[in-house]
Amino acid sequence: MLNCDVGESFGHWKIGDDAKVIGNIDLANIACGFHAGDPVIMDTAVRIAIKNKVIIGAHPGHCDLIGFGRRSINVSPKELRASLSYQIGALKEIAQVAGGTVSYVKPHGALYNSMMQDDSLLSDIMEIVAYSLPPPARLIILYTEKAEIHKAMAESLRLKLWFEAFADRLYGDDGYLVDRSKKGSLFNSPEQIENQIKSIIDEGSVNSENNKNLKIEADTICIHSDNEPSIIEIEKIHKLFSKNRNHPCPIGDK
Amino acid sequence: MLNCDVGESFGHWKIGDDAKVIGNIDLANIACGFHAGDPVIMDTAVRIAIKNKVIIGAHPGHCDLIGFGRRSINVSPKELRASLSYQIGALKEIAQVAGGTVSYVKPHGALYNSMMQDDSLLSDIMEIVAYSLPPPARLIILYTEKAEIHKAMAESLRLKLWFEAFADRLYGDDGYLVDRSKKGSLFNSPEQIENQIKSIIDEGSVNSENNKNLKIEADTICIHSDNEPSIIEIEKIHKLFSKNRNHPCPIGDK
Amino acid sequence: MLNCDVGESFGHWKIGDDAKVIGNIDLANIACGFHAGDPVIMDTAVRIAIKNKVIIGAHPGHCDLIGFGRRSINVSPKELRASLSYQIGALKEIAQVAGGTVSYVKPHGALYNSMMQDDSLLSDIMEIVAYSLPPPARLIILYTEKAEIHKAMAESLRLKLWFEAFADRLYGDDGYLVDRSKKGSLFNSPEQIENQIKSIIDEGSVNSENNKNLKIEADTICIHSDNEPSIIEIEKIHKLFSKNRNHPCPIGDK
Amino acid sequence: MLNCDVGESFGHWKIGDDAKVIGNIDLANIACGFHAGDPVIMDTAVRIAIKNKVIIGAHPGHCDLIGFGRRSINVSPKELRASLSYQIGALKEIAQVAGGTVSYVKPHGALYNSMMQDDSLLSDIMEIVAYSLPPPARLIILYTEKAEIHKAMAESLRLKLWFEAFADRLYGDDGYLVDRSKKGSLFNSPEQIENQIKSIIDEGSVNSENNKNLKIEADTICIHSDNEPSIIEIEKIHKLFSKNRNHPCPIGDK
Repeated sequence: MLNCDVGESFGHWKIGDDAKVIGNIDLANIACGFHAGDPVIMDTAVRIAIKNKVIIGAHPGHCDLIGFGRRSINVSPKELRASLSYQIGALKEIAQVAGGTVSYVKPHGALYNSMMQDDSLLSDIMEIVAYSLPPPARLIILYTEKAEIHKAMAESLRLKLWFEAFADRLYGDDGYLVDRSKKGSLFNSPEQIENQIKSIIDEGSVNSENNKNLKIEADTICIHSDNEPSIIEIEKIHKLFSKNRNHPCPIGDK
Repeated sequence: MLNCDVGESFGHWKIGDDAKVIGNIDLANIACGFHAGDPVIMDTAVRIAIKNKVIIGAHPGHCDLIGFGRRSINVSPKELRASLSYQIGALKEIAQVAGGTVSYVKPHGALYNSMMQDDSLLSDIMEIVAYSLPPPARLIILYTEKAEIHKAMAESLRLKLWFEAFADRLYGDDGYLVDRSKKGSLFNSPEQIENQIKSIIDEGSVNSENNKNLKIEADTICIHSDNEPSIIEIEKIHKLFSKNRNHPCPIGDK
Repeated sequence: MLNCDVGESFGHWKIGDDAKVIGNIDLANIACGFHAGDPVIMDTAVRIAIKNKVIIGAHPGHCDLIGFGRRSINVSPKELRASLSYQIGALKEIAQVAGGTVSYVKPHGALYNSMMQDDSLLSDIMEIVAYSLPPPARLIILYTEKAEIHKAMAESLRLKLWFEAFADRLYGDDGYLVDRSKKGSLFNSPEQIENQIKSIIDEGSVNSENNKNLKIEADTICIHSDNEPSIIEIEKIHKLFSKNRNHPCPIGDK
Repeated sequence: MLNCDVGESFGHWKIGDDAKVIGNIDLANIACGFHAGDPVIMDTAVRIAIKNKVIIGAHPGHCDLIGFGRRSINVSPKELRASLSYQIGALKEIAQVAGGTVSYVKPHGALYNSMMQDDSLLSDIMEIVAYSLPPPARLIILYTEKAEIHKAMAESLRLKLWFEAFADRLYGDDGYLVDRSKKGSLFNSPEQIENQIKSIIDEGSVNSENNKNLKIEADTICIHSDNEPSIIEIEKIHKLFSKNRNHPCPIGDK
């Protein structure tokens, strides 16, 4: 399955080409208005997803428009809980009005990174997702060497994890993503992106920053819709998945 | 029933004393983050309401923090629909996590005023509320001479209207509220407020700006938590209702 | 002189191609953070303008990011005054740090439209601009049949007006712009845009919605950087001006 | 000299009683719209300061209304520079229109704390302040054991430092403020506050968290207007200063 952050425009400002992108992915991570997105943009993205039978997920982030949710901000568990419920609830209602359902959650940007570094934060997020979505609730997180621990945490909450790998981001030797501020951390050629996808699907591994071979077992692969090289050949990229190798889609016949 | 706008603080800024006010009303109109309120403040207000067995309503407004939702802004039906679904959904989720339910909607400020002036806008709002809340969905609107027309509009949608009158606002001779910018439009003495409440409850009428006697049939009376004179004697005011004259509470035994 | 709204990106969101556009205009109307723009974007636009010897103007708007300053909002004279001083001051400081100067003001969107409809609002704006900019302070406003009245208003304040005409917007028969919500109000072919510019420069007139010939005496012509057809041939368009017909540039040798 | 953060209301929300507080301090740190304040509130605070002959300072913060500028956020030097210029420029213009001048800068909240921890950030801030204010430009920073180093940094920029001590905050043993999240970090009795002020003025020291005696040489003492106990007896507190012991006011005859 290919997942992608969408609905990340805001008011008069556009990012990405939702109409094109959503038609060529399996999981649409829809921004919920805190780091990007607004009600009209969310509604539009939801309807494109429904029309294309793409699975809808909530993509909540820090309340930080000017920083696009990519600035690290400390939030208390109480704030986190309320903020996630708010964002997920807003998207659920917009999806329901349009005849759709929110099936999973993928946190955005700095919140995602913090969650991968801090199991206590991850555990709080798991609880909220398990509570807010109809079963089987699902959460997308990065596949790392802690995957088994994370799986155990999720099981106790009856939450299903979808581990993901990144198509267009450079991995550090530790299996985490190299910071965006570092040159080369975001791939800028379609070839490089396709190669990393093939490597993940066919070899179950990626090459890291210093050429270390990292084992990756991903349920879904992420590309970035605000990265032009990722989107130029998205149809071609999506076909890499439809061959359906070891990536059967777990939701219905999608 | 006494209704009051609450949860209208924002971040570090406080308005009103939710802990005190919510314990002395019947219907808590909780702001949803667009004109006031944020996830933590909404969560806190919801929990106070649940603890005090106060009925929870959504109080959505224009996306206009700096103007507190009191500036008239044109929104397209599409924006209105998405914006209301977003705000109502956000509060529903926060309420559900806390063990509560959203039972009604009361639009805020400029959106409320526009709705009372424009039946097409009112009709759009009715549709969204009827769709988003579990039956019997309820909408609070001002009691005016158009009440019968409004009732007919609502019936076709299986929506229940709660007509309201205002305890602390001056009525124009036409039965609508006098604009806030006009001196005397907001009452500043507890006596004046109590008198208007008694007049509504006992006489079924209010005296307008130019001393016209206006017939009022209200299911609920509104006071403003950001108006100090309204709140000073809120316990005393609330007791005017508990005598339970012609104002039985329509929800369960509340 | 060709003037264009620039610096209208926000955070991670881009609108227009400032690097390309600013090099091909004479007057850069730089957004000031209320309807668009942020400090970094303003700083970048200012530096591009300085490098290209383009005259820098402040482009203040309503505090309304989600509406891009295009929604009509009532502001009191007190709010207007403070809000304009704030925005103009912010840009002046950023310009000064970069070695430039703010030479004029052009209000944005709904504020511009309101100013053209309401001489009392226009008069307030004139006063603020005359006070905030070093002489000769200049204000860009639409050329209409009231131009002589407006000129008289400005003279008493020692303010210079630059009347403008629009290259890519449809005129109503009354000489004001047709509302953006109306089809055809924004031109979508480069030919149409060039023709209107030539008509303004060569004939001193435009054809209105219902084909009325409107006399136009413009000191500067505006194009929109968020309108792709306006920008595609901006180099070509700018050359229409450099022939320098009846449009000598009034500031130094620019 | 007593300094205090003021103008920290926002739109409809009020914090502090500017009318009362500004009349009883010497230096008014006026918020600039990023973490608090808006143009009208800034204008009002400026005019109260001018009327009371109180020195006006800019109090810029992170762009973070929901967090009131108290959340730690990383900003690049480029962002910092543009953001400070923007905020200082906005206040300068509003002050000038009202007939006043901005004489100094004191960063707010998390930005202030970061500046005290990171000399590179402090140095950037010093440069901007030295450049943006007319000489002698002044910056308020915490008096710590690094005061001599900081003084040397400032001298090379012809910037004057005003070292400050805090009246209502608990000091850690290292001479920095104890984090606000920790109980007891903000004093809640007027006696405690007066005692710390007397100790600073008369003894030149404060007692830290673990009762360590810290030497303090402060040019100015800060109290918080959003801390009720600090404000209750502000007249009385201000008189502690007017006895004028070792705290002559360095600006004119103020």
